[in-house]
Amino acid sequence: MLIHSVYFWLKDEICEAKRQAFYEGLLGLSKIPTVEQLFVGTPANTEKRPVIDNSYTFGIIVVFKDIEAHNVYQEHSIHKNFLLEFSSYWNKVIVYDFEC
Amino acid sequence: MLIHSVYFWLKDEICEAKRQAFYEGLLGLSKIPTVEQLFVGTPANTEKRPVIDNSYTFGIIVVFKDIEAHNVYQEHSIHKNFLLEFSSYWNKVIVYDFEC
Repeated sequence: MLIHSVYFWLKDEICEAKRQAFYEGLLGLSKIPTVEQLFVGTPANTEKRPVIDNSYTFGIIVVFKDIEAHNVYQEHSIHKNFLLEFSSYWNKVIVYDFEC
Repeated sequence: MLIHSVYFWLKDEICEAKRQAFYEGLLGLSKIPTVEQLFVGTPANTEKRPVIDNSYTFGIIVVFKDIEAHNVYQEHSIHKNFLLEFSSYWNKVIVYDFEC
C-alpha cells in the first residue's frame, strides 16, 4: 500500500469561508477512483507534548493500493483542479509518502 | 475519528537487526484493542518534490474511533513496553494527531 500524508499551513489571511471551501476541496479528492480511503482533519486536542506538531491547519491521509494508484491520483483532473484553486491558500506544506 | 501519525528518524548506529525489531515493535502496536487500523512503512519512491520529506526511517499511522480510544492506546502496556524498549533508537520523532 502507499500512504500519502499531507499537512497544510494556511495563510493567516484565509477567511472562514475560504477555509471551509478548502476543507470541502480536500474531501472532494476522495472522488478520485484510485483512492481507497481518505481522512481529513484538524489538530486534535491530545495531550500537549514537545514531539507533537499541532501548528498546521489541515491534515489529510490518503490510502492507495500501490504507487501506481497514487500516481494516477496526482495526475487526475480533480487533483489538478484542487491545486489550481487552492495552492495559493497555504504558505507551508509537508508531504510524507510511505509504502507498507 | 482520531488519526495518530508518527515519523521516526532512527540513529545511524541502529543496525539492521535492531531496525527489524523496531519495525516488528511498531506492527505489534496493532494488538492494542482500541486500534481500528494501523499502517507502518518506509519512505516511498514517489516523485521527488521539495515539499516531500523522505528523510525519516519509519512512518506509522494509527486510526482510532475517538480521542478516548487514543488515550487508552497511549497508556496500554504494549505501548509503554514499546517505548521502554525502543525510545533510545531514534534521535527525532514528529507526531501529528488530527480529528475528523
